[in-house]
Amino acid sequence: MRRVRYSVAMSLDGFIAGPQGEYDWIPMDPDINFAALFKDFDTVLMGRKSYEAAQQHGEGSMPGMAAYVFSRTLRLEDCPDATLSADPASTVKALKQAPGKDLWLFGGGDLFGSLLGLGLVDAVEVAVIPMLLGGGIPMLPAPATRARLQLTRHRHYEKTGIVFLEYAVAS
Amino acid sequence: MRRVRYSVAMSLDGFIAGPQGEYDWIPMDPDINFAALFKDFDTVLMGRKSYEAAQQHGEGSMPGMAAYVFSRTLRLEDCPDATLSADPASTVKALKQAPGKDLWLFGGGDLFGSLLGLGLVDAVEVAVIPMLLGGGIPMLPAPATRARLQLTRHRHYEKTGIVFLEYAVAS
Repeated sequence: MRRVRYSVAMSLDGFIAGPQGEYDWIPMDPDINFAALFKDFDTVLMGRKSYEAAQQHGEGSMPGMAAYVFSRTLRLEDCPDATLSADPASTVKALKQAPGKDLWLFGGGDLFGSLLGLGLVDAVEVAVIPMLLGGGIPMLPAPATRARLQLTRHRHYEKTGIVFLEYAVAS
Repeated sequence: MRRVRYSVAMSLDGFIAGPQGEYDWIPMDPDINFAALFKDFDTVLMGRKSYEAAQQHGEGSMPGMAAYVFSRTLRLEDCPDATLSADPASTVKALKQAPGKDLWLFGGGDLFGSLLGLGLVDAVEVAVIPMLLGGGIPMLPAPATRARLQLTRHRHYEKTGIVFLEYAVAS
């Protein structure tokens, strides 16, 4: 079955973006093989805020990836390049059962919190950036369900000091 | 010079304790050599809340360690086994210049935030517990100073999936 994988870059203090959505603090590490990472996925799942931020950066869609945006307030005409859903539970359940590659839970924390509470997240993959942000968008906004994880892989990148940690969500 | 080292166990989502100060979610890993870690230190620095929590657990002081508690509200008689200071800046500056082993910034997040803002923290050492807490006491309460870190050491513990990350605070 397709897995839902929350794959994000995070500051050591647990933020995936700065207070204004900034991600200027995330260094590009030449040794991280993004192509290999992207190859695992054919679908991106996003909350409204992440979609709007991506649109502002001209990244509303990713080549070769279907995009699903979850929101109760967006209108269809706001999302010309994505599928819009107000019901993460049933949409994500259906996507998991359809054939295809893994589903990339791209952001943000609110959608992660909802899907985690519904037991629909299979993996949490975090690139820990050597930075304390001191505020911003949390990787998992409180209050949220407690969840045990199981470390499945870890790797350290010399040039930037990024540590990549992969976990399965324990059921 | 003695270093101030913020050495804590943290959930992947950035909490050092649960909402009620719980740390029942931190597994004991038989491969972590606490004796070797403790040997580096002769002094513990604590905020009021951490001191009170430690007292409740009968751990107000640690054998062989001098304890400093920072608070504007505690009275001397509340801290029979510790030195009390309302001025972290001058007390920690003086401690760093005195001879001795490293200073263990034991908790909590508030004191870390203050000392980080004053440029008085040298190292951040985090045992990342494979757990999402979904709320609790943040390792660094927002808003706080942004700080760049430099990864100095990392280790992975098989039995529990704990990942130990050591950083120097970049100046």
